[in-house]
Amino acid sequence: MSRDAVVGAVRALGVDGLLLVGDSVCDADIYYASRFLSSDRFAVLITDRIHLLVSSMERARASSESKADVVETTSDYSMKSRIEEFGSADKAYIKVLEEFVSKHGISHLGIPSNTPAGIYRSLTEQFETSLLDKPFEHIRAVKTPEEISAIAEVQEACESAMEVAVSLIKKSKPTGGILVFDGKPLTSERVRSAVELRLAELGCETLDTIVCGGLMSSSPHSRGSGLLPADMPIVIDIFPRSKSSRYFADMTRTVVRGEPSVEIVEMYQAVKIAQEAGLKCIKEGVSGADVHGAVCRTFDDFGYTEREECGFIHSTGHGVGLSIHERPSLSEHGGTLRSGNVVTVEPGLYYPDIGGVRLEDLVVVRENGCENLTAFEKELVIR
Amino acid sequence: MSRDAVVGAVRALGVDGLLLVGDSVCDADIYYASRFLSSDRFAVLITDRIHLLVSSMERARASSESKADVVETTSDYSMKSRIEEFGSADKAYIKVLEEFVSKHGISHLGIPSNTPAGIYRSLTEQFETSLLDKPFEHIRAVKTPEEISAIAEVQEACESAMEVAVSLIKKSKPTGGILVFDGKPLTSERVRSAVELRLAELGCETLDTIVCGGLMSSSPHSRGSGLLPADMPIVIDIFPRSKSSRYFADMTRTVVRGEPSVEIVEMYQAVKIAQEAGLKCIKEGVSGADVHGAVCRTFDDFGYTEREECGFIHSTGHGVGLSIHERPSLSEHGGTLRSGNVVTVEPGLYYPDIGGVRLEDLVVVRENGCENLTAFEKELVIR
Repeated sequence: MSRDAVVGAVRALGVDGLLLVGDSVCDADIYYASRFLSSDRFAVLITDRIHLLVSSMERARASSESKADVVETTSDYSMKSRIEEFGSADKAYIKVLEEFVSKHGISHLGIPSNTPAGIYRSLTEQFETSLLDKPFEHIRAVKTPEEISAIAEVQEACESAMEVAVSLIKKSKPTGGILVFDGKPLTSERVRSAVELRLAELGCETLDTIVCGGLMSSSPHSRGSGLLPADMPIVIDIFPRSKSSRYFADMTRTVVRGEPSVEIVEMYQAVKIAQEAGLKCIKEGVSGADVHGAVCRTFDDFGYTEREECGFIHSTGHGVGLSIHERPSLSEHGGTLRSGNVVTVEPGLYYPDIGGVRLEDLVVVRENGCENLTAFEKELVIR
Repeated sequence: MSRDAVVGAVRALGVDGLLLVGDSVCDADIYYASRFLSSDRFAVLITDRIHLLVSSMERARASSESKADVVETTSDYSMKSRIEEFGSADKAYIKVLEEFVSKHGISHLGIPSNTPAGIYRSLTEQFETSLLDKPFEHIRAVKTPEEISAIAEVQEACESAMEVAVSLIKKSKPTGGILVFDGKPLTSERVRSAVELRLAELGCETLDTIVCGGLMSSSPHSRGSGLLPADMPIVIDIFPRSKSSRYFADMTRTVVRGEPSVEIVEMYQAVKIAQEAGLKCIKEGVSGADVHGAVCRTFDDFGYTEREECGFIHSTGHGVGLSIHERPSLSEHGGTLRSGNVVTVEPGLYYPDIGGVRLEDLVVVRENGCENLTAFEKELVIR
């Protein structure tokens, strides 16, 4: 259970308590430790118990929704009269934080290195503090069965949205080099909007969605815009988050409507085999570097060698959870995989004069292999 | 133009440059200063020019999308070999940041107080630093005509979504104390999902939407859940953000389907008149405290006096822009309003044994009054 993991992780840090301050929409550690979603700033103090400090307006919701053992409010620490006293809500808040920490008998306080500097500096004047880098990254990387179910559910929504995208492209007609759907040229924007609408229907949000066609697809981060081409690759990368569970999923497919060039067909073949090599390599105990190495070797065998921002120019994959990019990393420096890690496996090849191809699956690391959460077909040419 | 405002604001800070580090999805100041949207961390250094430091993968997008004068990448500062050297991407990044700042001839560096503490601490060892609270809050509070247009556009989407909500409730039939739509009990979840779907169609995202009926509505932050009641108030508070412009809008209506109690009818009347009193008071030069005072006096005149978390228990309003809550504040401590401020005016009354009523409009402060961006009707009883 993640509550016990949180308390255990803090115990191992060698401090009396760990204080997190921020909003849990933007800070995944704060959501992980509290399971309380708020776009307003609040504080979590973890000792042998999990204490929340929220505004009095949030007391009821925090008590019913959060996983904290104790919910306190800033009113319990006379926030209102502190504001009168200091003439500043920020100064008053820092004073309230200090009393909150003191009250729980902390002398040596752990503070994550992403804590706002102003709060860190003030607390350092009152307490012995240790600045800690990402205190939950290792426990967050190993998902509980509940977390894996939550991710699998988002992945299902993701595939439903991919189906919408692929089906729009499939129903389009190659006409004079572009795709035409329902009498109108099909654009990246049209496909993206259909994808995001389906995700909204399924309770997911997206910061963005890549629908990138033609030579533009040779830039892996390009989101794509304008007319979608016939006979050229279209990279579709969808990474939604559930609005309720807050977990992400992530997948990519590359498709061509019409007749792809020989180069693209060969690249697709190599990417697919490289992905299989990566997937085959994954199990508890191997390193992310090993998996990345297996993918790179496959590309080398096919004669695709990275040079000057061409070829396979990114890492093989990354962890996915409450953040879209988290531990572990499947890259040159990736460490040992553990059962319960959830990672993407997403080799790709990119050439500015040919285009880009990427395939991305989302998998769970298991003791003797991996469980692929992605069921969506891999077909380059769709008709 | 906001670029010149940003450079001017930094000049007034008395530092050689201001460094912002974070992601512009979560940090509105970073988006404001760069107009570059990324969920990956990047840096903005503002001197007499605006310099961006992004990963090499983001160079092309940053050059075409951002408002920066200069785009540099971490590769320009040998990020890859720094990672080899330090064995840590975070340590390497801090070294790169230091070189980036040094290269631009900064000796006295301004750092916002919400900068991650780890980065602040490292920079403090290399430079003379000043920690600055919200360096752009005052310039962000005064919107340019382009910003006001962007907000007005989101507000239109917001009203279209409100129309969806109100129309669902209107078409429902009061049956045995609850509302029935299409043969099924109408729930908060059903209305919320219809609202959010319409917003998604219009290119907006929402963290949440309040659809809260019955006695639950007496808690102003309750999002609402379950069956929607007949004859009782339903508070609908919608605060979407445009996915493209990143600006928010915000509005609230309270409706009853069926026959409201006399208490609710009277509360609605008082809230409506209090809101009118607040709106009438707004113009350049008056203070947010004056506006809040006008609203409070109206409630007092009607005999609604706040006590023990009953009555009018929050402030009158807040600024809206790239954040949902920003300057200026229409509250006890609210300062002078300036032409171009965009604020909510949202009086409400809350009684646990009766329910809640809130009305919220979004307005622009002008020289001689205010311009209401909200056109949606105010009718308590809908049929």
